[in-house]
Amino acid sequence: MTDRLFQQPPSDKTALEEGLALTPAFDANGLVTCVTTDADTGHLLMVAHMNAESLRRTIETGEAWYWSRSRQTLWHKGDTSGQIQTVVEMRVDCDQDAIWIKVRVAGDGGCCHTGRCSCFYRAVPVGHGTCEELELIKDD
Amino acid sequence: MTDRLFQQPPSDKTALEEGLALTPAFDANGLVTCVTTDADTGHLLMVAHMNAESLRRTIETGEAWYWSRSRQTLWHKGDTSGQIQTVVEMRVDCDQDAIWIKVRVAGDGGCCHTGRCSCFYRAVPVGHGTCEELELIKDD
Repeated sequence: MTDRLFQQPPSDKTALEEGLALTPAFDANGLVTCVTTDADTGHLLMVAHMNAESLRRTIETGEAWYWSRSRQTLWHKGDTSGQIQTVVEMRVDCDQDAIWIKVRVAGDGGCCHTGRCSCFYRAVPVGHGTCEELELIKDD
Repeated sequence: MTDRLFQQPPSDKTALEEGLALTPAFDANGLVTCVTTDADTGHLLMVAHMNAESLRRTIETGEAWYWSRSRQTLWHKGDTSGQIQTVVEMRVDCDQDAIWIKVRVAGDGGCCHTGRCSCFYRAVPVGHGTCEELELIKDD
């Protein structure tokens, strides 16, 4: 099991939150959430998942590797599209179940499979009524 | 079930990805991932989860409500700490299983339960060797 790449999270909460060991808290499916932002603009590009092996590859190669839940396979982002993501910085959150990578995107600079730069191309109106009535606002 | 607040995601992929209806793709636990950034600095503050009811409350009140997985309860961020998050903008991703909110934080401006502004206060060195050797770098 590639999970053995990383030690088990310590049962001591302070060690987990304040320690200097990367001990990802993988969920029942062996995944952590990964948030990917553009290193230059700070824009949120996508939210995906990593298992231990994709996390290892990302750390060791400096390029983003994810775990595709739909295809149940390792996913080297950009392998077919050319939209390789070079990791400028990686961070981990307090309880180590989320990873943040800041990336530079190669190829045509896209990220979303719909062809857009970011997966978050629709806004949800907030504070204007009930959920039943709302309509998303799509970017131009 | 509060999931009925929202319609089921359409089986047609184009409708899900290009449509103007908010039809969140809740996971088996009834949750979507929520990425929360600072509306002014763009900094990533936290990654959390929302169920249908917390999503509804966030949309209708304009303040961030989450679902606490550890406490299994609705969680109005800031209720006890004063760190209320006012939502400046909400976005949803292509397959509608992730929400992005840009917020302004009240109270002392903190977000993480450790007292910090962001949960992502440790960097993971990338491209410098194997996972076994790495040591996290904690912000000052």
